[in-house]
Amino acid sequence: METIARIHNDFPTKFGLPRQAGLAPSLRSKVVFEPAYRIAEALRGLEGFSHIWLIWGFSASEGWSPTVRPPRLGGNVRMGVFATRSPYRPNPIGLSSVRLEGIEKDGDNGLVLVVSGADLMDGTPIYDIKPYLPGADVHPDASDGFVGAHPQRLLDVDIAPDLAAALSDSRLATLREILAQDPRPAYQDDPGRQYGLSYAGLEICFAVEGGTVRAWRK
Amino acid sequence: METIARIHNDFPTKFGLPRQAGLAPSLRSKVVFEPAYRIAEALRGLEGFSHIWLIWGFSASEGWSPTVRPPRLGGNVRMGVFATRSPYRPNPIGLSSVRLEGIEKDGDNGLVLVVSGADLMDGTPIYDIKPYLPGADVHPDASDGFVGAHPQRLLDVDIAPDLAAALSDSRLATLREILAQDPRPAYQDDPGRQYGLSYAGLEICFAVEGGTVRAWRK
Repeated sequence: METIARIHNDFPTKFGLPRQAGLAPSLRSKVVFEPAYRIAEALRGLEGFSHIWLIWGFSASEGWSPTVRPPRLGGNVRMGVFATRSPYRPNPIGLSSVRLEGIEKDGDNGLVLVVSGADLMDGTPIYDIKPYLPGADVHPDASDGFVGAHPQRLLDVDIAPDLAAALSDSRLATLREILAQDPRPAYQDDPGRQYGLSYAGLEICFAVEGGTVRAWRK
Repeated sequence: METIARIHNDFPTKFGLPRQAGLAPSLRSKVVFEPAYRIAEALRGLEGFSHIWLIWGFSASEGWSPTVRPPRLGGNVRMGVFATRSPYRPNPIGLSSVRLEGIEKDGDNGLVLVVSGADLMDGTPIYDIKPYLPGADVHPDASDGFVGAHPQRLLDVDIAPDLAAALSDSRLATLREILAQDPRPAYQDDPGRQYGLSYAGLEICFAVEGGTVRAWRK
């Protein structure tokens, strides 16, 4: 498996990353091809698709486990790894559908893909890019197993003025999406505990109490 | 990349395989895990999902090409490989969503997955199995690029009685789906030419003339 591209975005660490593609729809990322794959013709026709698949490698994989504890279930119920999108798989491959916002010339990088809604950490290696084909990939009637029985609960978000002022409107919108989904480790419910989050070059602190997450600049 | 399972079905060769997942919805396949991955707990919770993703390896890959000629475009227009699901990719990885019909005990094979709609050849190595998550994977508004402008044209199917008699009802239904989509190489339009197809242990001949495909037993 060869790395054909890497993703670039505002998340230098795993902490705070959306737990699934599409959960932070306003998060922009850039897909930069490795020099050997900066071939404009290889993208011909891709501009007609609104969504694409990224097949990528979990960085910092720590081996696999037959069962895992999905955050969605509160982190205390074990499910089979093949019934989840957990990173602890035999082959640590991730699969994400993202919106293709544009294909742009980016200096020495050649053509790059601008995408939104990705759940990949900055620098993640990408192994393949495929068009999302509605005819083959959309199953509107698909049942969602244990996931549907545990809908994501969103928090209210309260961002301190100095933090809000340090971010562009679009980055602020993304941070709101990220925080609303409660980025704490699933097994921790320690009201008022402070967590640190690296985002867009800033060090951010946040705490959750009741149904609200408060965030401020460190 | 380790092979965790292999698919078993009625297509011993690539010729005649559906060109995309879901194009032969009645085609049944069995996913048999390799001995090291016959671990029942790794499948816990999977039974609640109606669809799953298979991430698999193109057998007999012949290297990659920046542009390819999609059969859907008649085989004479070049598109970028990343705008297609062609096998001629830098990393020869396939991606298919299939319907999960059941999880069954299968003697020494342990638990196997019975799926329908796969576009994988018998024996294809599978690298990963993931649940299809409607919340992340369904994009009903997705645009389909050049594919939508070239809808699949279906042929009428005329199967000789001796061939029909040699197949079970479900295999006959699958063969009809396969033939209706015109399994000839895209660049050949040679009315009346005979082609051979291996399917379900039978050697089948077929020919296309006008809008009809006729098939008989060799």
